[in-house]
Amino acid sequence: MIIIGELINTSRKEISDAVDNRDAACIQRVAAAQMEAGATYLDVNCGNKVHNEVEIMAWLVNTIQEAVEAPLCIDSPNPKALEAGLKLAKYGQPMINSITDEQDRFTEVLPLVLAYEAKIVALCMDDNGMPNTAADRMKVVGSLYAKLTEAGVPAGNIHFDPLVKPVSVVSGAGIEVLETIKLIKEQYPKVHFACGLSNISFGLPYRKILNRMFVVQTMTLGMDGYILNPTDKGMMGVIYAAKALLDQDEYCGDYLTAYRDGLFE
Amino acid sequence: MIIIGELINTSRKEISDAVDNRDAACIQRVAAAQMEAGATYLDVNCGNKVHNEVEIMAWLVNTIQEAVEAPLCIDSPNPKALEAGLKLAKYGQPMINSITDEQDRFTEVLPLVLAYEAKIVALCMDDNGMPNTAADRMKVVGSLYAKLTEAGVPAGNIHFDPLVKPVSVVSGAGIEVLETIKLIKEQYPKVHFACGLSNISFGLPYRKILNRMFVVQTMTLGMDGYILNPTDKGMMGVIYAAKALLDQDEYCGDYLTAYRDGLFE
Repeated sequence: MIIIGELINTSRKEISDAVDNRDAACIQRVAAAQMEAGATYLDVNCGNKVHNEVEIMAWLVNTIQEAVEAPLCIDSPNPKALEAGLKLAKYGQPMINSITDEQDRFTEVLPLVLAYEAKIVALCMDDNGMPNTAADRMKVVGSLYAKLTEAGVPAGNIHFDPLVKPVSVVSGAGIEVLETIKLIKEQYPKVHFACGLSNISFGLPYRKILNRMFVVQTMTLGMDGYILNPTDKGMMGVIYAAKALLDQDEYCGDYLTAYRDGLFE
Repeated sequence: MIIIGELINTSRKEISDAVDNRDAACIQRVAAAQMEAGATYLDVNCGNKVHNEVEIMAWLVNTIQEAVEAPLCIDSPNPKALEAGLKLAKYGQPMINSITDEQDRFTEVLPLVLAYEAKIVALCMDDNGMPNTAADRMKVVGSLYAKLTEAGVPAGNIHFDPLVKPVSVVSGAGIEVLETIKLIKEQYPKVHFACGLSNISFGLPYRKILNRMFVVQTMTLGMDGYILNPTDKGMMGVIYAAKALLDQDEYCGDYLTAYRDGLFE
């Protein structure tokens, strides 16, 4: 399983201010805290700094890598910002967040996936918009899988994002995602997943219990990559418990360590 | 989904003492508390009072029914105690806990299932003992399903218990149960489930997080009946959250009620 730490994102005020002040120490503290808490990748997103996103992406990647030897998930809608980050990312295999089956976006991002031999987060959407049902998602999955693998991307580098909508808005939003995960696992056993799930709880109170339970539910069907806040002890606690139950934790070793580390207090 | 309240069990000291003193008020308080907390059935078990189990079962059933109009799950290894309880149970459809594919037990319990048109908890075990793998469990499931339905028990009255063992002892104990639930749902879509899950966490620290997450995982694969303590707010909270995510809670109404009732504090 991969845990992609989501905290280095300029939509968060702490990070936006740190970027504006080129406060490297703040960025490095957040990077180190996420790795210590169990992240295996760090997401880097400065997409709302539209006027100088390319320069900021480069600064963020260099700044993070001075502090931690972490593989990075370069996250932007802007191919130039993606490239600026990928050029500098030097630890492990980089990840790109994200490609879709929208024609323009696919054409722009594919060359970067190939040039940097990157893992790629593939969103289940195309020029028709965001699908509602599992069946509609699977049409996009099938199309993206065919195009990416034919272009030479190894199936194991593809991480599908099943596209999560709020259960408060779309009836059955949860079960359609669960069904999509099940179908992807059955039909494309070599691929992986990567996704933020907190959309699921939008508009409801006490969102954290819904977010945590949806992580456990999706893990149960084979989801193996999450973009989340690894310093949220409650979230990491349920993940360690779920891994122990799913036989993904030999001798329950990680669970016992998490217990000793106080994740279940 | 059915929630079978587990607290009226003489293996618990409070209940054992109340039975010894024929303290009806105590039993009635525990019965009412479970119903108020969301139980839809109440388990009644006095199996460790071996010398007068039949008489105590009758007293318990009458005592409970003076306080609450709840359907009861009559729980005993002793067919005479089962019959004593079933004779008196008067609200809704009674449930028998349990039958197995052990020849003697099957022969003794089947006539009661038929005579009282009861729901029946069917344990995945036979004279060969307790199976380890999902495939071995499914052999017992197939045998029990065939014998019960051929005898005239409607498939919808059968509640399989997939037989939970501790993950700390049997490697893969969790995933074998999850696989069993998935296979039962696929092959016998009309049947239901009923099971206590707390065995899963035996021998590990902070058992409640494992128990709760295993409920959420099994619900995700279609499990729809649990024997548990409904006054455990944390457990009921994750169940309401899981139901909202699984589209089993129209407009998230039960989730919102649970929130207002303080289940997520």
